[in-house]
Amino acid sequence: MTTTEKQPALIGQRIAKVDGLERVTGQAAYGADIHLSGMLHGKLLHSPHAHAVIKGIDTAAALKLPGVMAIITAADFPELTQEAAISGSSEYSIGAANLRRLWMAHEKALFSGHPVAAVAATDPYIAEQALALIKVDYDVLPWVKDIDDAIQPSATLIHEDLFTHTLGELPKKASNVAQHVEIGNGDIEAAFRDSDVVIENEYRTQRVHQGYIEPQASTAQVDPSGHVTVWTTIQGVHWARFDLASILNIPLGKLRVVPMEIGGAFGGKVYPTLEALCILLSKKSGRPVKMVLSREEVLRMTGPTSGSIVKIKTGCKKDGTLTAFDAKIWMDSGAFPGSPVAGATLAGFSVYQFKAFHIDGYDVLTNKVRVQAYRGPGAPQACFAMEQQIDLMAAKIGMNPLAMRIKNISKEGDPMTHGRPHVKIGFTEVLERVKAHPAWTSPINGPWRGRGMACGMWMGGTGNSSAHLTVNGDGSVSVVVGSVDLTGTRTSLAQIAADEFRIPLEKVLVTVGDTDQTGYTDTSGGSRITYSMGTAVHRACVEAVEKLKGVVAAQLKVPVADITYQNGIFKASNGQSLTFEQAARTSMRRGDGPVTAVGAVRRLKHAPTFGAHVADVEVDPETGKVTLLNYTIFQDVGRAVNPTQVEGQMQGGAAQGIGWALFEDYVYDEKGNIRNASLLDYRMPTALDLPMIGAEIIEVPAGDGPFGVRGCGEVPIVPPIATIANAIANATGVRIKETPFTPERVFWALRKAGKA
Amino acid sequence: MTTTEKQPALIGQRIAKVDGLERVTGQAAYGADIHLSGMLHGKLLHSPHAHAVIKGIDTAAALKLPGVMAIITAADFPELTQEAAISGSSEYSIGAANLRRLWMAHEKALFSGHPVAAVAATDPYIAEQALALIKVDYDVLPWVKDIDDAIQPSATLIHEDLFTHTLGELPKKASNVAQHVEIGNGDIEAAFRDSDVVIENEYRTQRVHQGYIEPQASTAQVDPSGHVTVWTTIQGVHWARFDLASILNIPLGKLRVVPMEIGGAFGGKVYPTLEALCILLSKKSGRPVKMVLSREEVLRMTGPTSGSIVKIKTGCKKDGTLTAFDAKIWMDSGAFPGSPVAGATLAGFSVYQFKAFHIDGYDVLTNKVRVQAYRGPGAPQACFAMEQQIDLMAAKIGMNPLAMRIKNISKEGDPMTHGRPHVKIGFTEVLERVKAHPAWTSPINGPWRGRGMACGMWMGGTGNSSAHLTVNGDGSVSVVVGSVDLTGTRTSLAQIAADEFRIPLEKVLVTVGDTDQTGYTDTSGGSRITYSMGTAVHRACVEAVEKLKGVVAAQLKVPVADITYQNGIFKASNGQSLTFEQAARTSMRRGDGPVTAVGAVRRLKHAPTFGAHVADVEVDPETGKVTLLNYTIFQDVGRAVNPTQVEGQMQGGAAQGIGWALFEDYVYDEKGNIRNASLLDYRMPTALDLPMIGAEIIEVPAGDGPFGVRGCGEVPIVPPIATIANAIANATGVRIKETPFTPERVFWALRKAGKA
Repeated sequence: MTTTEKQPALIGQRIAKVDGLERVTGQAAYGADIHLSGMLHGKLLHSPHAHAVIKGIDTAAALKLPGVMAIITAADFPELTQEAAISGSSEYSIGAANLRRLWMAHEKALFSGHPVAAVAATDPYIAEQALALIKVDYDVLPWVKDIDDAIQPSATLIHEDLFTHTLGELPKKASNVAQHVEIGNGDIEAAFRDSDVVIENEYRTQRVHQGYIEPQASTAQVDPSGHVTVWTTIQGVHWARFDLASILNIPLGKLRVVPMEIGGAFGGKVYPTLEALCILLSKKSGRPVKMVLSREEVLRMTGPTSGSIVKIKTGCKKDGTLTAFDAKIWMDSGAFPGSPVAGATLAGFSVYQFKAFHIDGYDVLTNKVRVQAYRGPGAPQACFAMEQQIDLMAAKIGMNPLAMRIKNISKEGDPMTHGRPHVKIGFTEVLERVKAHPAWTSPINGPWRGRGMACGMWMGGTGNSSAHLTVNGDGSVSVVVGSVDLTGTRTSLAQIAADEFRIPLEKVLVTVGDTDQTGYTDTSGGSRITYSMGTAVHRACVEAVEKLKGVVAAQLKVPVADITYQNGIFKASNGQSLTFEQAARTSMRRGDGPVTAVGAVRRLKHAPTFGAHVADVEVDPETGKVTLLNYTIFQDVGRAVNPTQVEGQMQGGAAQGIGWALFEDYVYDEKGNIRNASLLDYRMPTALDLPMIGAEIIEVPAGDGPFGVRGCGEVPIVPPIATIANAIANATGVRIKETPFTPERVFWALRKAGKA
Repeated sequence: MTTTEKQPALIGQRIAKVDGLERVTGQAAYGADIHLSGMLHGKLLHSPHAHAVIKGIDTAAALKLPGVMAIITAADFPELTQEAAISGSSEYSIGAANLRRLWMAHEKALFSGHPVAAVAATDPYIAEQALALIKVDYDVLPWVKDIDDAIQPSATLIHEDLFTHTLGELPKKASNVAQHVEIGNGDIEAAFRDSDVVIENEYRTQRVHQGYIEPQASTAQVDPSGHVTVWTTIQGVHWARFDLASILNIPLGKLRVVPMEIGGAFGGKVYPTLEALCILLSKKSGRPVKMVLSREEVLRMTGPTSGSIVKIKTGCKKDGTLTAFDAKIWMDSGAFPGSPVAGATLAGFSVYQFKAFHIDGYDVLTNKVRVQAYRGPGAPQACFAMEQQIDLMAAKIGMNPLAMRIKNISKEGDPMTHGRPHVKIGFTEVLERVKAHPAWTSPINGPWRGRGMACGMWMGGTGNSSAHLTVNGDGSVSVVVGSVDLTGTRTSLAQIAADEFRIPLEKVLVTVGDTDQTGYTDTSGGSRITYSMGTAVHRACVEAVEKLKGVVAAQLKVPVADITYQNGIFKASNGQSLTFEQAARTSMRRGDGPVTAVGAVRRLKHAPTFGAHVADVEVDPETGKVTLLNYTIFQDVGRAVNPTQVEGQMQGGAAQGIGWALFEDYVYDEKGNIRNASLLDYRMPTALDLPMIGAEIIEVPAGDGPFGVRGCGEVPIVPPIATIANAIANATGVRIKETPFTPERVFWALRKAGKA
């Protein structure tokens, strides 16, 4: 794989983001920064009801408003082709038919905020005015509020045609449960009988939003010839093209999806939201159409992650050996299928080894906005439950909770919940680092203070990646990738290329290409880009070096096999040599043509990451307020290509996990409307809420991919809820089993326990 | 090279342009069709003098005009680095220092229309107003009007530091002659002595403009971080990047040149015109800046092709055998070096075989706008002279002029003027076709009517080309090329790819990429794209088929070597098979990753083309007006990938040659200002001036490249002047030796000969 025997020079360096200046100076063009000639502005009409039949939509008055150029409703969607219906969508579970109904309510509005119509007008204010003139005739239905409601046998059905998807079973009646996953191993009854301690509890989490800074924004232009161009802020242009093409019945070659810069996503911009509506409005109006969501709309109609209920029973022996667990997980997926319950059963429960286990997972629908992915989807909810149980059992047998974890941790070759073995992982190294670190060993004094820890894992994404590169005549290299840059991957990919060529970083230009210009590439998500796209870029570099050897051989008039490349120098055995820059210059006139190369990656082995978090909290018994005193993350990242960026990922993920644990929540009124759809009322953590978060990087190289990197962006969000819950329990003696741990909830829990 | 033994299915088909609909509906975005946020509009201040020292420029008043955001003059150009000065420019002869002085007058204004300052303002009208407020202090110098003036020993020097470039000689004093080319072979004196007929004449041509529809238009944006993006209408983005980067001292990786659609070029948009000025204005103003030339500016400041003087003496034997020629060619290159005199000495004089020859060529400077390339540069002027001489000698010995040509034509292996042998060419086949064709054999009756013929050749361009492609999951293929589409090459390249894959044409999407996204590619010119880029695309297709074989092998669980590809089907020897579309679909989950491939071409063998034109004219002796009755082109195109497009090239080139012969001219006043800088006064031919032009395609496959194609766009402009001159001579008995053959010139020639 590696062309030279060298020490990586740029890998591991703290490089400032190569596109940092454009971003901080406002030059980078985000979704809303596009202006096309004759462009119209689109606005959405939302359902004010959580559940209602749409009996009719009257757009006549709105269409008469001067400046209104087109109005669309579900009726403007083409019939779904059978192929699209079968091939589904880019998303693992929602499917094309549901995605279409999510973009715009068809027969029923399924959540408050569900788009029912869209207007394109010459300016956004006219479009807004027009919305008020559209008359929708609703037949309001009872709404399904939460998991408890949804799974009642008498529950109102959200979809009349939804049958639970279960392996090997064919349900007889429709329900609100979209999927039932059941996995297990070993004789669970015997294992519990054999336990010295058995503890059973129920844990609940709320739904939380990814909280990206940039609202969704898309622009579409449909040419008279049928060519469609979409400029959008989305995590993956190729997935978007696939979804839009199949649902709107456009040939792939006639649909170009151009990625704009993206202001945060965290899983919340995996699938298209506005793109199809912009396309239909552009088609109807004959003009380009831009739509930009407001913050209120982001919170009302784009997916948060699932709220959950986990009922779990765990057992252990007196010596700390884990014996068995039996878990039931319900995840609230909102109005369409797609909660991360399957992910939860794997990543959430494969951290420790039990003799036997059993998990039932349920994907449950409610009349709320449909969930989306959010960093390590499903794992934080499962981690919360499991890590409370570990602490509870450790306390019961009087064992140090870290020692109990170390004793039971999964190692290479141990089975995961789905039965396949763990690959090479750095779990042990992480916990050994914790054991010796002051964050864990330093004393914690004072009343109402406590320290907690928790562990989590994430499988790491792999998937398809395509890159191509050109060696320019001045020795610079242009790299074009099919993946959107969410997290600074232009920088890490530039480091990988510059390192492989051994040329200065500023000689490498990484461009994010559009769907016409790049090979198929899966979406940027699941911590896969540095790992998978990094491998694709690396492969293209290796191919380019081979081609440059041909150029150098032609120039030096020696056989190609005689040329070696090391530390930026092409050498012939007779001692003649050319630098990379000289070879690049020479490539303009010698050899088989300009040097270009491609790199493609199908599916690498998973390179899982493991993290342990330690937090110190202080609880105010008079108000219930939890203050974070210290927070430290320990994480195996395989190899930190850019430690500054890796730390940023770790700290950012933890900050979001802390918001989930302590502050954020969706507050609904009795009719299913969100009452806090603004950043003033939806309480995300700010810098004032957080201590400086310590980030300890552990490097246990992964077996596949260049340099042993592991994706590092997901796992930091997994342990925070569990870590803080354990810390609160240690500070107060009271264990709180439902998030968020707001002052109100903590206060009443203390009061109930007689402590406040 | 070819992956399957198949009959080409799409090669040779009359496919409508794949991007025709976008173009005719106005959706295609040309140079002026770009609108950026905060964009300024630039306008140029031109020198009103043909030759003047610039003593000072006062911009103070202009800068005070509200809305004026920046003004630049030559002082805003960075110092030329030594490397740039040495490495020159993308153009073969002008060099970086001259290109810079051409873009904006430095010490002296060298032609009327030479830009001396540029203004960027919030709208184009304010910019225009500001121009009037700029005060330039000129010291007017005598101007060098034409070749006769320029080569006088006492001539005013245009450049004080211009020394004639001659092989092996070092001139002692500066002059207006930039280059002297001298080539020859054989004992010319002996050959003339041995001749039965020797004829000597002088022929003159005027300068003519390419007459593209779209004026030059460029937009530049300089980010605070120094990244520069230029959107422009130019024949080659990589050459433009090289010139702009080296002259403005920008690293290649920080300069992105994005090709807009181009509305004609014909050689006239090879090098940048406005791009550098837009960049400097954007840098100074901090805003994007767009400049669009007016038609008047196009004629005043963008390069036409050279006017010429050819003195030629030719000899032959009584049996028609050509013996010797001695030619002197002066070409007027305008204010900077760069006339196509070298090309003229090769393509203009390698059509026939002489026992001995001698050519002196001179590149002569005058105070007129500097010339640019124009279809087959240099060859039409030489062809005019040579083909008159052939007809004159044929008449003298009483031989049929076609028979005389056939007798002396160059064949494979015969030397060209530069001594290297002709490769496989279709000259003989073309003339055999003429001989049998009614255009030549049909009677031509009536007074003042005559038929003429002439032959011409063009070497055909080769150069560097880069393409990459992606096989999409629906069986479509996205091809990205580094070459601008001037002439319908998206269509011919799509045909080549679709044919190679044996998939429907609509499954192939060809995109013209920008400099960040494509490998190095030489400019679109010299009839090189279908030949050279066609080969690059073909190579990428071959590579993709090999990769798809790997996918199919993985799917069918057989060794790769077991898979063959034929007629769109991948087959294993056990009889299992997958269609291309199935293989593409399978490639999304099997094999080594998404299927992408690159194709690069360095320098193929030349694939010369040869054409013979036959015209019938009628001359009105009372007005001197020449009416074209019939016009037929016979041309060897190697292989016509798309006969409709090939015919369009042939007819378009001939139409331009006819305009050159009969109508177009630059009219200067006594101070060197163009008097007819509008399309009303600069008389290009319209449909009313032309008969339907017959296009006879002859296919003698070229030895290199896919399918035997030869570039076909240049040679059609070579014979028209000579053809029409021969026809006029045959119609009137008077031979006119200076173009254009306007009524006035023809009338006076007839009058002088006593015929009118």
